[in-house]
Parts: sequence; C-alpha cells; structure tokens
Amino acid sequence: MFESAEIAHDIDKTTFEEQLPQLRTDILNAQFELIETKAFPTILLFSGMEGTGVVDTLTNAYTVLDARHVVVSAFDKPTEEESERPRMWRYWRMLPPRGELGIYIGAWYNAPLTNRILNKSSIAEYKQELERIKRFESMLASEGALILKFWLHLGKGEQKKRLKKLGRSARTSWRVEESPWGGSKRYQEVKLAAEDMMRRTGTDHAPWIAVNAANRYSRGLTILTTVLNAINARLARGSETAAPVTAPVNVPILDGRNVLTALDLSLQLEKEDYKKQLARYQDRLNELLSRKKFRKRSLVLVFEGNDAAGKGGAIRRVIQFMDPRRYRVNQFAAPTDEEKAQPYLWRFWRRLPRQGDVALFDRSWYGRVLVERVENFCSEADWRRAYSEINDFEAEMSDAGAIVVKFWLAIDRDEQEARFKAREETGYKRYKITDEDWRNREKWDEYTMAVCDMVDQTSTSTAPWTLVEANNKYHARVKVLKTICGRLEESL
Amino acid sequence: MFESAEIAHDIDKTTFEEQLPQLRTDILNAQFELIETKAFPTILLFSGMEGTGVVDTLTNAYTVLDARHVVVSAFDKPTEEESERPRMWRYWRMLPPRGELGIYIGAWYNAPLTNRILNKSSIAEYKQELERIKRFESMLASEGALILKFWLHLGKGEQKKRLKKLGRSARTSWRVEESPWGGSKRYQEVKLAAEDMMRRTGTDHAPWIAVNAANRYSRGLTILTTVLNAINARLARGSETAAPVTAPVNVPILDGRNVLTALDLSLQLEKEDYKKQLARYQDRLNELLSRKKFRKRSLVLVFEGNDAAGKGGAIRRVIQFMDPRRYRVNQFAAPTDEEKAQPYLWRFWRRLPRQGDVALFDRSWYGRVLVERVENFCSEADWRRAYSEINDFEAEMSDAGAIVVKFWLAIDRDEQEARFKAREETGYKRYKITDEDWRNREKWDEYTMAVCDMVDQTSTSTAPWTLVEANNKYHARVKVLKTICGRLEESL
Repeated sequence: MFESAEIAHDIDKTTFEEQLPQLRTDILNAQFELIETKAFPTILLFSGMEGTGVVDTLTNAYTVLDARHVVVSAFDKPTEEESERPRMWRYWRMLPPRGELGIYIGAWYNAPLTNRILNKSSIAEYKQELERIKRFESMLASEGALILKFWLHLGKGEQKKRLKKLGRSARTSWRVEESPWGGSKRYQEVKLAAEDMMRRTGTDHAPWIAVNAANRYSRGLTILTTVLNAINARLARGSETAAPVTAPVNVPILDGRNVLTALDLSLQLEKEDYKKQLARYQDRLNELLSRKKFRKRSLVLVFEGNDAAGKGGAIRRVIQFMDPRRYRVNQFAAPTDEEKAQPYLWRFWRRLPRQGDVALFDRSWYGRVLVERVENFCSEADWRRAYSEINDFEAEMSDAGAIVVKFWLAIDRDEQEARFKAREETGYKRYKITDEDWRNREKWDEYTMAVCDMVDQTSTSTAPWTLVEANNKYHARVKVLKTICGRLEESL
Repeated sequence: MFESAEIAHDIDKTTFEEQLPQLRTDILNAQFELIETKAFPTILLFSGMEGTGVVDTLTNAYTVLDARHVVVSAFDKPTEEESERPRMWRYWRMLPPRGELGIYIGAWYNAPLTNRILNKSSIAEYKQELERIKRFESMLASEGALILKFWLHLGKGEQKKRLKKLGRSARTSWRVEESPWGGSKRYQEVKLAAEDMMRRTGTDHAPWIAVNAANRYSRGLTILTTVLNAINARLARGSETAAPVTAPVNVPILDGRNVLTALDLSLQLEKEDYKKQLARYQDRLNELLSRKKFRKRSLVLVFEGNDAAGKGGAIRRVIQFMDPRRYRVNQFAAPTDEEKAQPYLWRFWRRLPRQGDVALFDRSWYGRVLVERVENFCSEADWRRAYSEINDFEAEMSDAGAIVVKFWLAIDRDEQEARFKAREETGYKRYKITDEDWRNREKWDEYTMAVCDMVDQTSTSTAPWTLVEANNKYHARVKVLKTICGRLEESL
C-alpha cells in the first residue's frame, strides 16, 4: 500500500519554482471554472504520519489556490453545540457547497485511527466505524462530490529526522502537531493501522492516495497535480447522466393486500373519549419530556401522510401544551439555493435538535422516496439509494440519543375527496386546494406503492414507522400521542 | 405607563371561545399572505412580570398560529460558540427571514433589566446598553421588520396570587419560571425598572405594549388581536417607497484635495527590501497570533480598494504562513436567497470569527456605501443610515474582543488602466477583465466621493481605516502587514 509512497523523490527548489507558475495558472483556471459552473463540491481530506506537516502542506496549497473558495476545517474537541448532536453533524455543517473546495484535516478518520493505534476500541467497533464512514463517503460521491483522501507518508528514518527538525524556527513552531500517536516510537503500529484503514475505506469514488512527504517540493507538486487532474477530469465529463440501476426491484402485490390496505380505516373514537384521552396523553408527554433523563436525549417526530390526512392537526395536538422554547416545527418548501448546493439530506441535518429539544417534521427527508420518486424529480438511482442513506441518517440520530418516531397518516380516497371539498369551503387561505392537489390524487396507486416500499425499507427497530388509521381524526391524534409517549417511556 | 395595563379585564371562557375561531381564521389568513408575499419579517418580543406566564401565552398563541412558520427563541446561558462572538450574534442567528415570525422571550432586554433590578450595573452602563438596543431595533425596522414588544403586566396582588397558583398541576409545573427578580418581594423595583426601560426604548417603529395578564382570555385576545392588526396594517401598506432623506448632506471638495488625493502614490519599495520586510512581518504576525492572549481575541481584516488595486495579492501575503485552520478568507458574490431574506448585515454577522481565529474579508459590508451607493442598488436613505449601522456592528465586534483592521488600497487611474491591460493578457481566467470593469472606471469620481465619505464616517478609534498607497505593490503589501502587526501589538 505504501510501496510508491516510500520512494523518496529528490525535487529541488529550482525545479519546483520552474513548475509552479504553470501549475498555479492551471489550478486557478480549473477553480475558476468550478466556481462559475458550480459543477460539484470538492472534498480533500488529509491525514498522515506524524511530522509530515499536514498543515504545512495546506499552507503551501493555499498560496496556489484561490483562498476565497476554500474552507479548511480542522476538528478539535467538539463544541457544546456539536457534542449535543450526532457525531457527523460537525462535518455536515462544514460541507463545501458546489463549486467550492473543502479541506478536511483528519476529520472522520481521526477517531477510529487513533483508537486503533492506541488499542482503545475493539476490532468490531473499529470495523463498524469504518463501514459507517464508507457509507457516508459513498453518499457524498453519489451526490456528486469529488473526494480525494491523501495519506502523507514517511519512511521510519525520515520521520525521526523530521520530528526533530520541526519546532525549531519561530516561524514554524506552531506547525509541530501534538503527538497523540507517540511519534516515531509507534511507527510500525501507525503504518499497519493506516494500511488497514486505507484498505477498508479506499473506494473508486473516494480513493486514498499515499504521498511521500519527505521532500516538500515533490510532496507539493504531487498533491497539487493530483488534485488538478481529478478536477479537470471531472469537469471534462460534464453533467453526467444518472447511473443505471443495477437491481431495479419491484415486488408485485399479488392480491391488493399491502401494509396500507391491511389497515382498518374504520377505527373510530367518540368525542368524549377523545377529549379525555387527549388530555391524558398530553399530560403524560409533558411529564416525560420534563424528566431529567430527557435532558441528555432528544425527540425527532416525523409526520408523513396522504394530502389532507390531518398531519397539521395532529402536530398541533402534540405541541399544544409543550414548552414552546423546547420544540420547533419544521416544514420544507422548495430548497433555498444554499440547500440546493448541498446533498439532499443537508437541509435536514441542519435542523436536528439539540439535547433536551424536540424537532417536529411536517413532511421530511422521506420526500425523496415519495413525491420525488413518483413525480420523477430525481432519478431512479437517486431514490433507490436514499433508503439506505436515510437509514444511516436515522441510525446516526439514534446513536446520539435521539428518539425517532415516524408516522404515516393514512386515509382512503373517498375520505380525501370529502376533505378536499370541505377545505374548498373554509375561510383558511392556507388550506387552499390547488389543481396540483387534485392532480396528485390521480397518482394514488403510485404513491401507495412508494409508501409500501418506504415502510418496508426504512422501518427499523430504532426508528420504526407507525401507520396511523386517520379516517377518524380523533383516533389518529390519540394514536399519535400514545405512540410518542410509549416510545419515550421505553427509551427513558 | 401601566395605567391601562393595570385595569383587569374579565373575559370569560365562553366569550373567548366565541371569538377565537374568527380570530384564528384571520390570523392564519394574514400569516398565509405573509408567507406567500415574503413581505417582511415579524419580531414579537415578550417580557413581563414574574408569574405572568410568558411561556403560557406563547403556548396559546401557538395553537392559533401556523407553527411551521414561527420560531420561538429563548436564551439561556450563551453556548460556547455564542460566547466567543459579539453579544448580539445569538440574536442575529435567530432572526426570522421575511415572511416568518420570530418570537423572542426576554432576549436582549433580559440582561439590562435584570442588572438594573438587582443593581448589578451602573446607570451609565444601563443607559448605554439600552441605547445600543434602540439602535439595533431601529436598524431592524429600517430593514423592514415589524417589531412588537409586549410587557405582560400584573398588579401587585394579582402577582402574589398567580405565583402561588403556578406550579401546582403537573401539566403546568414546567411553566413556573425561575425567579431571578425575587418574585413579588421586589414588585415595586421591577415595575419602576420596567417603566424606565420601556420609556427609553419605546419607539414608533418598535413600540412597547403593556398588557394586563391576570385574565388569560383577555391576555390572549389582546395580544393576538394586536399582532393581527399590526400585520394587516403593514400588509395593506404594500411595498412602500423608501423613506425620504432628512439631511442629504454632500460636503463639497473645494480644491480637489481629499483623503485619497492627499496620498503619495509614488511611494516605492525595492524588491530586495520588500522580500526582507515581508518575511520579517510575516514572522512577526505568526508570533503575535500564537500568543496566548490572542486565544481570547479575534482578528477581522477588511480589504477594500479600487478594482485591480491588489487586494488579492495583499491577502495572499498575509495568509501565506498563517495556520490555515485558524483563518478564513471571505468573499461575497450575489447574496443567496437565505441572505436576501435578512437585513443586509446578516451575511457578514454569520461569518464573524470565533475567538483565536482570523476572518479576512475580500470586500465586505462596505459594499453598501460603495458599489450599492454609486450604482443605485439601494436607496439613498439606506446607504446613509448604513454608516452608523456599520459603526455599531464594528463596535459590537471590538467590544467582544475582535481587533478590526480595515484597508483601502488606492491606485490612480493610469495605474488601473495599465493593470487592466496587463490582466487581459494573462492566462488566469479569474482575472478576466469584463466590460463591467471598464464601465466602473467611468464612475471614478463618484467612487472617490463615496470612499471619502466612507472613511470620514466610519473611521473610528477602535476600527480605523488605513489608506494604502498601492501603485507599488511591494509598498502596499508591506504596509498592510506592518499595520496588522502594529494593531495586534498594541491590542495584545
């Protein structure tokens, strides 16, 4: 894995300075085109042997790049706001938008690699962590990101020499990185761990590139040229067509029975009963949310359902007596242009609640596998990969202590028609029924299939779907509240 | 001040429930129109006597409003990320975009009021703080925000009764707010302090509205109706024309001498000298930034100047040996739609550095009084008020420990022409000279006047402008670095 990277290259300053101006012109031109076309985001990740001068490398790269379109992110201890959210949140918030370069130092590889070297995690944990990273990078790549991961390498003797030399001049002393891996003492462990990590996480869409770092000129030229070539190759490809779907599975429904038709939509609740139960569960919900244990957890409530199924009304009953400082109801109109320049999950990541808080989603990331699928707003490959991306997303939340509760509010066609007509007569402008609403109704069967697939693919033990019979609003609201209370009880 | 608010209103539940449906329809319709037109942001601020149930009020309001377009912000202790930035940063990051409602509990009035009641600040500090708030609200109003500030009031006896009653039921126990003001014990002090605060900060564009809070039904109806009327009145006004300028001052330049023409643009530095001095100041800069004291400060560098004056080159020399993890170079293209929905300073607030970090601005908030003024991108009233808004903004930064250094890089017309022509021949696409660049040149005199006004109006002792003779790039770059080092030295 390090065969080429252990070959030292003896490039002298003169050669370097001869080559630099052309390289610089080429890189600035490529960057300019990237900024103009906003074709894709570029993610450069740097890791490496201690003493390789990762920061030094960047400082040099910076003088070549147009720094106004580059953001370097180093990750020390998570801040309070970061540590109260899923671990990947801090990386998501720093993702470069299309057209820009994001440079990550260590980033998501820091923890697993350090833990491995210092034997602080089990092999199983370590493998699991790398698997998670691989899935994250694969998602980024599918969303169009160009990802290059550099491992700055040194031979054992070279490292010893470098570590000594660093820290002498006042000008570079800040560059001497702290040495959590024990410097050259643990050279062999670091090398083996890095090799293993690179083997497990090197993919065609997010490759590791090992670079010999002993000679700063060869190091600089190698990295810059590699980045330049990759960007130019991607730019030359232009906007590609979506990847073909390898396994376009559509399981037939043989007898019309599916998770939705299996629901008993005739379930009713009388008004008196409703009032009593509603008050009871609202009280219990408040009691549960005020428990001390909840301060280290958070609650994520997802509401999906047919048009006019009563999502809004259900949400209103959930929040009715909740402390308004502790929750936020999120709804998503067309993405803003900042959101459009990012992976589709980005706008949901930015709304994740802090510990002790509640986030309600009136429609959610499931739009990808529902409306975007049915209306062809994304390619088939895009929505097909979304299932596992969403599962990963929700697993991240659960791992960070979030309690994820998801509802599908189901009504039948007749009930929807009645509600549409009733709405056309109310005085609430926001309930305006548009032609689009009527049009969506015509795709009822396609939506049904999308819902069934969604439930099958994304109902997990940590984030299960609850299907709610919603022809009767009283029944639906109480079931929603009761389910939330139940989940909270078993989780706290 | 509390005459009306001390009159109790005896509205019973039946009356309330009779009126609510119509009120709700009206409010939802108004909110719907607001969301559709994105006409303006609405800021509702709540403060009040202890025991008035601010949160209770909101909980009720919430069931009437469309919660998906409302964000409630309560402000406890600042988070780490907040406390490392100017005090107003946490409020800026929560500002509602146009079309949305932001509900603030206490917010910027909390600290001065509490300090006043508990005698923790001097009268002078207190007045200064209120003055600052007034300027902030005035800026928001000029940017189009509808601001309503509610003071929930209680008579002395009423308060005693309320405080006792609260906290009994499990359902409302969380609503019992902690009592930093000492409950009814300090009733009179609170009342006097509130009166004084309201008198000093009540304005036509951000009025205080005192509401008797003893009866929850009258409280709810009063607040909701007030909000509804205000929103409808503003919606009815439509998009107004800009306010007229009361004092359109233009000081004549009698003999062609101004701060720019007074510069000696013939200043030169030889290459050898340049190299030596550059290295010297770059070293010193790194030394200064690595001082322990800087970890509690931050550095804000603003670069403005004529087109082709060499801002980019100067910035590159400043960052050349700086730790890339600690700085960010900001450049501003057209505002994103999230930025367009906010006051014009918002996109700069979001880029303010944390403690220990450096933010470089390649063009900045001064665009308002330069290009936007000259090209008529904003009204005269807008750029005229910008001077004091910018001064306030920079004062906020300084108060929070930021060292603000601002450069105007000046070249003359001939030098600019020569550089334009040279650029047309280089291989860097990003240096492309467009027709627009040539067109801007024709407005040289207008830009000159704008620059002179800007320097006069915004050069302050804490954030002074440094005019840099930039016909000679070597001289300019060294002067920039030297100035930064000088400011850091005197500040650390």
